[in-house]
Amino acid sequence: MFRHTKLLQCEAKPDGPDAVLARKIQELIGGAWGEMTVATQYLFQGWNCRIEGKYKDLIMDTATEEIGHVEMLATMVARLLENAPATEVAHGVTDPAVAAAVGGMDVQQAIVAGGGATPRDSNGVPWSGGYIVASGNLLADFRTNVAAEAQGRLQTARIFNMTDDPGVREMLKFNLARDTVHQKQWLKAIEELQADGIEDDIAPDALLDVEDQVHNNTIWQLSDGGSGPSGGWSTGEDAIEYLTDPEPLGGPATAPKPDPKLYGSYAAVENAKGTVKGKAQQAGERLG
Amino acid sequence: MFRHTKLLQCEAKPDGPDAVLARKIQELIGGAWGEMTVATQYLFQGWNCRIEGKYKDLIMDTATEEIGHVEMLATMVARLLENAPATEVAHGVTDPAVAAAVGGMDVQQAIVAGGGATPRDSNGVPWSGGYIVASGNLLADFRTNVAAEAQGRLQTARIFNMTDDPGVREMLKFNLARDTVHQKQWLKAIEELQADGIEDDIAPDALLDVEDQVHNNTIWQLSDGGSGPSGGWSTGEDAIEYLTDPEPLGGPATAPKPDPKLYGSYAAVENAKGTVKGKAQQAGERLG
Amino acid sequence: MFRHTKLLQCEAKPDGPDAVLARKIQELIGGAWGEMTVATQYLFQGWNCRIEGKYKDLIMDTATEEIGHVEMLATMVARLLENAPATEVAHGVTDPAVAAAVGGMDVQQAIVAGGGATPRDSNGVPWSGGYIVASGNLLADFRTNVAAEAQGRLQTARIFNMTDDPGVREMLKFNLARDTVHQKQWLKAIEELQADGIEDDIAPDALLDVEDQVHNNTIWQLSDGGSGPSGGWSTGEDAIEYLTDPEPLGGPATAPKPDPKLYGSYAAVENAKGTVKGKAQQAGERLG
Amino acid sequence: MFRHTKLLQCEAKPDGPDAVLARKIQELIGGAWGEMTVATQYLFQGWNCRIEGKYKDLIMDTATEEIGHVEMLATMVARLLENAPATEVAHGVTDPAVAAAVGGMDVQQAIVAGGGATPRDSNGVPWSGGYIVASGNLLADFRTNVAAEAQGRLQTARIFNMTDDPGVREMLKFNLARDTVHQKQWLKAIEELQADGIEDDIAPDALLDVEDQVHNNTIWQLSDGGSGPSGGWSTGEDAIEYLTDPEPLGGPATAPKPDPKLYGSYAAVENAKGTVKGKAQQAGERLG
Amino acid sequence: MFRHTKLLQCEAKPDGPDAVLARKIQELIGGAWGEMTVATQYLFQGWNCRIEGKYKDLIMDTATEEIGHVEMLATMVARLLENAPATEVAHGVTDPAVAAAVGGMDVQQAIVAGGGATPRDSNGVPWSGGYIVASGNLLADFRTNVAAEAQGRLQTARIFNMTDDPGVREMLKFNLARDTVHQKQWLKAIEELQADGIEDDIAPDALLDVEDQVHNNTIWQLSDGGSGPSGGWSTGEDAIEYLTDPEPLGGPATAPKPDPKLYGSYAAVENAKGTVKGKAQQAGERLG
Amino acid sequence: MFRHTKLLQCEAKPDGPDAVLARKIQELIGGAWGEMTVATQYLFQGWNCRIEGKYKDLIMDTATEEIGHVEMLATMVARLLENAPATEVAHGVTDPAVAAAVGGMDVQQAIVAGGGATPRDSNGVPWSGGYIVASGNLLADFRTNVAAEAQGRLQTARIFNMTDDPGVREMLKFNLARDTVHQKQWLKAIEELQADGIEDDIAPDALLDVEDQVHNNTIWQLSDGGSGPSGGWSTGEDAIEYLTDPEPLGGPATAPKPDPKLYGSYAAVENAKGTVKGKAQQAGERLG
Repeated sequence: MFRHTKLLQCEAKPDGPDAVLARKIQELIGGAWGEMTVATQYLFQGWNCRIEGKYKDLIMDTATEEIGHVEMLATMVARLLENAPATEVAHGVTDPAVAAAVGGMDVQQAIVAGGGATPRDSNGVPWSGGYIVASGNLLADFRTNVAAEAQGRLQTARIFNMTDDPGVREMLKFNLARDTVHQKQWLKAIEELQADGIEDDIAPDALLDVEDQVHNNTIWQLSDGGSGPSGGWSTGEDAIEYLTDPEPLGGPATAPKPDPKLYGSYAAVENAKGTVKGKAQQAGERLG
Repeated sequence: MFRHTKLLQCEAKPDGPDAVLARKIQELIGGAWGEMTVATQYLFQGWNCRIEGKYKDLIMDTATEEIGHVEMLATMVARLLENAPATEVAHGVTDPAVAAAVGGMDVQQAIVAGGGATPRDSNGVPWSGGYIVASGNLLADFRTNVAAEAQGRLQTARIFNMTDDPGVREMLKFNLARDTVHQKQWLKAIEELQADGIEDDIAPDALLDVEDQVHNNTIWQLSDGGSGPSGGWSTGEDAIEYLTDPEPLGGPATAPKPDPKLYGSYAAVENAKGTVKGKAQQAGERLG
Repeated sequence: MFRHTKLLQCEAKPDGPDAVLARKIQELIGGAWGEMTVATQYLFQGWNCRIEGKYKDLIMDTATEEIGHVEMLATMVARLLENAPATEVAHGVTDPAVAAAVGGMDVQQAIVAGGGATPRDSNGVPWSGGYIVASGNLLADFRTNVAAEAQGRLQTARIFNMTDDPGVREMLKFNLARDTVHQKQWLKAIEELQADGIEDDIAPDALLDVEDQVHNNTIWQLSDGGSGPSGGWSTGEDAIEYLTDPEPLGGPATAPKPDPKLYGSYAAVENAKGTVKGKAQQAGERLG
Repeated sequence: MFRHTKLLQCEAKPDGPDAVLARKIQELIGGAWGEMTVATQYLFQGWNCRIEGKYKDLIMDTATEEIGHVEMLATMVARLLENAPATEVAHGVTDPAVAAAVGGMDVQQAIVAGGGATPRDSNGVPWSGGYIVASGNLLADFRTNVAAEAQGRLQTARIFNMTDDPGVREMLKFNLARDTVHQKQWLKAIEELQADGIEDDIAPDALLDVEDQVHNNTIWQLSDGGSGPSGGWSTGEDAIEYLTDPEPLGGPATAPKPDPKLYGSYAAVENAKGTVKGKAQQAGERLG
Repeated sequence: MFRHTKLLQCEAKPDGPDAVLARKIQELIGGAWGEMTVATQYLFQGWNCRIEGKYKDLIMDTATEEIGHVEMLATMVARLLENAPATEVAHGVTDPAVAAAVGGMDVQQAIVAGGGATPRDSNGVPWSGGYIVASGNLLADFRTNVAAEAQGRLQTARIFNMTDDPGVREMLKFNLARDTVHQKQWLKAIEELQADGIEDDIAPDALLDVEDQVHNNTIWQLSDGGSGPSGGWSTGEDAIEYLTDPEPLGGPATAPKPDPKLYGSYAAVENAKGTVKGKAQQAGERLG
Repeated sequence: MFRHTKLLQCEAKPDGPDAVLARKIQELIGGAWGEMTVATQYLFQGWNCRIEGKYKDLIMDTATEEIGHVEMLATMVARLLENAPATEVAHGVTDPAVAAAVGGMDVQQAIVAGGGATPRDSNGVPWSGGYIVASGNLLADFRTNVAAEAQGRLQTARIFNMTDDPGVREMLKFNLARDTVHQKQWLKAIEELQADGIEDDIAPDALLDVEDQVHNNTIWQLSDGGSGPSGGWSTGEDAIEYLTDPEPLGGPATAPKPDPKLYGSYAAVENAKGTVKGKAQQAGERLG
């Protein structure tokens, strides 16, 4: 069960309106790597965590924080839209700065949300439950979390360079910091999983002896950029072998004869160019 | 530019039909962590890579391989569907095994694809370009790749346990191996990025001095599971501080007065319960 | 900012496994009218609310509760899946009850979530940010909330009839109750908006004098079911006029001549069946 | 079965081109609350209506009208795009008004539709069948219809303020009127359902005695805004009780031990930090 | 503007319930090639048609018919679900035929629609506006229409083989016929466009002299199946040349140096493996 | 299995930056008719092709080429974005050309991809697996391929007119040529299918004698545009009959009595306006 305080985790006050920035911040709210993603991802990971204690608690602490990040960003968007040119008519614009705003703003923030944030990305695509994962395997999931925090911090850093508003930058400094510490925390949690003997290097820690014992250590050079083998990954004790001219191991990619009731095209060689109707039609006539 | 050989990277021959398994394998083709995802993700990362040489070559080698994995799985699906009960009528079923197959198969494989694979997941949801990322930052992206290979191997391992078909298992052993080595390779490529001085621990390697210097090293305990601070992440030299009773740093999450032309609900306190119509309507009347 | 307790708002303990029910409950989690929808909808409405005080507080109280409902249902799903036939091979099934479970379960709950809930509906379609609205107009939004609680209660009631598990039914009784009171609360909040003079009957309370003054009170009979005019809506003081043989008010639905650079098909009458190439091609040749 | 006349229900002739407005009108066509939504929603409700007569007829009359609204708006879009700067090159723009148009137009209207409307919203997101509902319960559905007409009228009113084109405004006045009367009609149809003894206040009119009899009349104060209890909803005869310090009713949100064949992370306390490999790996080795 | 009669274009009465078939018919309603697609596609094509007269009229006649096809199929679904095992509990099933139905039915038809059709495909994926096209170029669009009718007839024929219900088959015979004639009609309309001099063989009929005059008549053999050149397409007067060992025409696929404010990974060769921090970080520090 | 060379199939070098064009080119990459669609469509068609030899080889040759087209376009996008105003702040813009670029660019290309292409369309909507088809019936699929190449060439031709950059135009001339030859090739492959006796005119070549023998040759005039019958499709030997005043063949579109456990609204006539509660509630009470 959750509780809420109206106070924001960190202040979210811009110094002035900026409709284009309000649109860009949508990426941090409802983009594939936005706060809705990490909030939902961590919530489902926490609920799906099968080890009570420190891991689950760390996940739920972070999940709960992230809901508050959506709140900060949604508040920032509404404030950036105060006095934005929501109802400006394009053919009357005479100022290039207004033109940039009219062209670059998210029209749904005005038409649908009345001057507020939406659960969508910076191109207006609705956030999707397909973005998140909670697999029940902590190693696989913590690695996904590291990735999510890295992508999230990268996008935040880029947007930091897209504004000169001191109030917005102040909030983004906090967000950057949280993305930094969350990267660190999931990296350390991976070490902890390994120290605790719960997971090892490869996720999942299973079927390692069963899998193909040759091709779990080869890189196939299938592109003609020749520098792949010069990487550190192919040197040292645990070097991965770089196959520089690999050949296919399997036979031809043929598909079986189709079910005649599904009317796939199929014809014996002897029928080709002949007068006999294809197999598909014959089957159809029989089944009519 | 690409070239293709009909020969499969690895053989894909089941010993018999299994429509339910054919549906599950869709997850490995068109699921969020399936082969379409890694193929597309690596292709866009390669094309978006700004460092010529070993990194780009490694990415493109792997990307090219993954297209061939979609091919193996699609071939396997078509073969698993040979002699599957595609047109069986439910009310005529008398065998529980057939009932399980009729209920559990992917009907689109028959109706739409005529007994073949589709670019969708195991619930029939189309693969989405929203699943992938190619950010241009190699550290962020390689971490995402590690995650993708971990989730992919996990799903493959689960499906390995859902079949007893020797031919299918033989192919899955190859797939498991590739997911193993790809995890290793991206982990080592991250080390290489760091050894080469291109990226460091945190992605992106920027704004680290600018971000909030307190809250880039604190975990906020916002859930009542009390074990978070006992994790290894909060001990040692580089311990992250666990704030056990954190307080909000910001003010209330208020939204500004709305633009009257957008008709958001807003009314001064003095009007409430009075006879005067709300501000929204007055504005509307003026603007009519 | 949010806080979380591990304790569930209401107990969520099934008496036994039921994989088919676990799938159906996904509708209540990630369906268009599930708990993810009301949670997200109320959160964005609260953040977008421009009147501080009772309305905003009511919204945020309810929003915060709904996050906890997702938690209850996700917990229930994981427990229903304990000992479910996740890895059963279809061709080995001999028991019709197992066959029904194998056919009817959500395979992603096993393959993707390892035996847990996903942020998707009962057909596996990811939850979408497109399902929710937070318009900034409280009358429009509260009516949407009444609808959401009504649809949600209806689906819960249907699923109540799809299980005989006493533990599941116990939880659903709580959920039904919450959907009942939330319907009541939003209906009463609408009355309050009207009593407070903030909104009236029609949303938005604007442009009512500007709109077409004839056709804001006519129902057009465009289908041949003749009973429409016999409804109570067409009797009494505020009767809506039922036009029983309405004629179009506008002219033909023609589209203008296309921009030649966009190569839409267009040809003057005199060219038809003639030897002259179409306008589109001529334009193309000029622009080459 | 349907029939069509080319004449528009209401005239749709703009006085001049406006590519930015043509984009905004997409929201009224293919947005979540656009005319495609109400048309499809009412059609499916009508087909799914189990009571012949006035209710079904009212639904089908309105459904049929709404298809014609899509037609009016699509016609308006094509006309607004006549002489729009579809092929203008950005770096050659010297007029801020043109800059606003180039930046703010929907490029798919030109590239994909050749200067016409698309079945998408104002950000280009395709209309989705997930937006609509036809539950078979008329009370739940009529409430959803009231909401849809309210949101639709609100968006229309906002767009009315975003144009000064007399021809566009003339059409929007008709659309506003239809959204007004449709709100009224569904509200009155709800009264009729109740007068006819078919449905009552709460949807569905079932399980009301079965649901939790305490918590079908309590509001849980889970956010610290303290004004919730001061609303009219908590006074009078049928007051809803406001629980100002509610406590969870359930136990901890724990997840059960995972199926070992699904490789979720799980480890007994005694294994932690020990030398023994985790349970997951052991299971994996056994199952190889 | 549209009008509606309650009478179905063709009777839609099954002889008995069949929940699995009701699910499959969803593909014909809301699948990518279902009736919602052709109805919407033709409507937008008609509204976007820039030539008044026979073409537009043919399109609008067909569009209007297709809305009625959705109606027939939705009615059929509701009737197939009468007495379907909507609320059957899986663990109580003893009959394999019931097991197949419980496993294979569309649970949303019960939970969401109360025993009716939904605007979704046979896997429950919502119909998407992204499925349709109305380009304004009649040749391109009529070819798309031929394709749509072919795919639609194919799916209908497959489903015809999935039922033995005489009432369903009777309706499908009508649907098959309509898909046949619609294929014929669009093929003949393409001939008419050419006879009328409006479009020619290639869509669009423009830039044909501007495009690359070598590679508008070569097929590149990029796969090792060697039979491509033996097809009729490479013989005769208008033979297409089959390049059996084509070489790339372009240079390497390099990406430019990234914008330092976007923090893409980039490092000069001299920095690699050195002690100097990467360019990205340096840029970040400067920009802080 | 696939192999890759870094060399582009055709050069992709713009003469200068153009962020707005970079956005429009996304339509050719990840739009419904973009290169991701044809690449994926042909790959799945090839893998699903049941006739070894010339058809399958032609499909796989073309499929492999199309992957390279995505590569060309993605490279072009990255190069068009070099020196684009990615981090320009709107309120500082003084040049209308910059304003047009700031308003019209795809912000995700900067925020998400760091100055590169994304697998999305020109409005930022992710590419969807729902766009493609591989039915197993070659006639149906080749017709779909003709349509895809026609729509693709049309969009390419439109974008050709949206740029004056010689380098971009040079590449587009190659793309136009490929779309021309691919249209020709699929048209000729259809002739070949017919010459080989595999398929005939109508897809699928089945159930033609079974379908309704009257209505497989009638066009129903359901719209009041009267020119439909004057088209060439209704003259000559194989004329299609134009029914100018068609009447419905079926009975009323009624839905059956709903399952009481699903709480659809249903009430016998005698209960209406009476004091007895509706059937739905009674059922609910019994089932509690």
